[in-house]
Amino acid sequence: MKRLVAFTVGDFNGVGPEVALKAALHPSVLRIARPILVGPLDIFRHAARLFKCRVELERAVFPALTGKHLQVVDVGDGIWADVKFGAPTKSSGRSAGAAIERAVELCVNGSVEAMVTAPTSKEALHLAGYSFPGQTEMVTLFSGSQKVIMMLVSPSLRVGLVTVHAPLKDVPGLISKEKIVEKINLMLASLQRDFAVKKPALAMLGLNPHAGEAGHIGSEELSVLQPALDAARTNGARIDGPFPADAFFGTQAYKRYDGVLAMYHDQGLIPLKLLSFGKAVNVSCGLSIVRTSPDHGTAYDIAGKGKADASSMVEAVRTAVAIAKNRSSAA
Amino acid sequence: MKRLVAFTVGDFNGVGPEVALKAALHPSVLRIARPILVGPLDIFRHAARLFKCRVELERAVFPALTGKHLQVVDVGDGIWADVKFGAPTKSSGRSAGAAIERAVELCVNGSVEAMVTAPTSKEALHLAGYSFPGQTEMVTLFSGSQKVIMMLVSPSLRVGLVTVHAPLKDVPGLISKEKIVEKINLMLASLQRDFAVKKPALAMLGLNPHAGEAGHIGSEELSVLQPALDAARTNGARIDGPFPADAFFGTQAYKRYDGVLAMYHDQGLIPLKLLSFGKAVNVSCGLSIVRTSPDHGTAYDIAGKGKADASSMVEAVRTAVAIAKNRSSAA
Repeated sequence: MKRLVAFTVGDFNGVGPEVALKAALHPSVLRIARPILVGPLDIFRHAARLFKCRVELERAVFPALTGKHLQVVDVGDGIWADVKFGAPTKSSGRSAGAAIERAVELCVNGSVEAMVTAPTSKEALHLAGYSFPGQTEMVTLFSGSQKVIMMLVSPSLRVGLVTVHAPLKDVPGLISKEKIVEKINLMLASLQRDFAVKKPALAMLGLNPHAGEAGHIGSEELSVLQPALDAARTNGARIDGPFPADAFFGTQAYKRYDGVLAMYHDQGLIPLKLLSFGKAVNVSCGLSIVRTSPDHGTAYDIAGKGKADASSMVEAVRTAVAIAKNRSSAA
Repeated sequence: MKRLVAFTVGDFNGVGPEVALKAALHPSVLRIARPILVGPLDIFRHAARLFKCRVELERAVFPALTGKHLQVVDVGDGIWADVKFGAPTKSSGRSAGAAIERAVELCVNGSVEAMVTAPTSKEALHLAGYSFPGQTEMVTLFSGSQKVIMMLVSPSLRVGLVTVHAPLKDVPGLISKEKIVEKINLMLASLQRDFAVKKPALAMLGLNPHAGEAGHIGSEELSVLQPALDAARTNGARIDGPFPADAFFGTQAYKRYDGVLAMYHDQGLIPLKLLSFGKAVNVSCGLSIVRTSPDHGTAYDIAGKGKADASSMVEAVRTAVAIAKNRSSAA
């Protein structure tokens, strides 16, 4: 049974429509999913012509979805003449935001089983009045969820982030025992529910070089990380650390864990991207709905050139479908 | 012509004597270097017995070095009965510190061409009255140098660090335009003089996630990193960046550069160690003398068991010899 998956348009001045279309037509996606595009219909039509995709598009009519062609939920307010490849605009932000809102709605009311979001521009979203740090926060709010952990998933590594798009100087102040415990619990629950890992083993990375070297290089490991780890363990969770991050990856210790909790963006994403070769997928864990996205941005520099690689978007669909399956077999 | 290279004992309660001895007896070291051990003679004799090394040791007499056996510069104040595998002690710190002092002296007076330092314990050195953040700072001071950059070198990547063993919360405050320019210049000079790269191309990583995303995630890229980069370029240096660190490694952009300047420890060492598989070497660049070391620590947990892997120490010798050769052919 093929799963209904919504693909949002992303920022139409970037590679969003291109990777959404390419992924929606990809054989390995069509084997497992029925894609529903969400975004301005004329933007997708324009993209299909420009990138010479052999596809016909038609307006989706729920719940029947009787059409023979690739279905599009038209958010309507984009016009293809607005396309300015390479720059964030109010118009591209409005379409991107409307598509996210609509896709979340389709997930929440059960019209689709998962959503995969093409990359957006934070600046464009801001211009259009969507003032969020990123898509994850939008999806969290619109789906009525309170808590979320951004997890990056590749065949060899799953990394959850305690802080995400914070300036490095703010990271130590943003890390608290309560927050880490919350993220650990969200990650463990997601590994069980979404990834079918019965008894997940988690590793926690230190914040400081050498994980603080017993307090010689920073105090947070002793004052925050270790207490959080102890608190999380009282629920019976298997969680080790805090580990010096460089040695943890250098000795390939990550292979012994189902997930790794990183304290900040680059600590988790440098090893993830080095090990994944463009196959990494971003998963919003802890939500009632299923949402994944590729691990790259709008790529304004190659927008409109037909050069965008949809493989991370394709992986995002496969991961979304796998999660949806795990959830329904658990239910 | 085989190069004379001093090997310091490191912390004798850790794997120091073991990796120093193993490396000094390794065929690929003996092909290119004549090793001189520096440390307490009885500690090395004890280690040779314990680890069943087929070697005779004798006291080195400079400048003749006429002995037939493996030469040891005896720093004398250690006794093997002091060995307490697995813990830093005042005695192990005193021997480790004395060996570093003596090896630097041998380099400075031209008795040897390079020094390779086995791992020490900062805590043991502190107990013995050596109050330095690390060996690099000791070697820098003892050799009469002012400026240094710690560079980690592997077959696929060379990473220089702007900050090293600083708590993460102190990193943003430690980064200034002047400091970055100094580190860039030290790294460029070392790539030319030590690694024989005629026109080095350098990449600079951003401090913040997404390299600050044009000021949206932290301001240091605009206020500090970019001005430093512009200033360094006025000397004709080829230096690009600041790059988002995760994408830089994920897209393998590092392959296009002779060196990468990282802003902090884990940002540089996570990818370095992931890519090097225990073959990374630490080089103190900018000194008058040649000093390298392996990329691991004292490994107290496996000390005395004969399990220590000397391959990074061997690589450190090969790198030291290569640098010594490049320097003498340039001179």
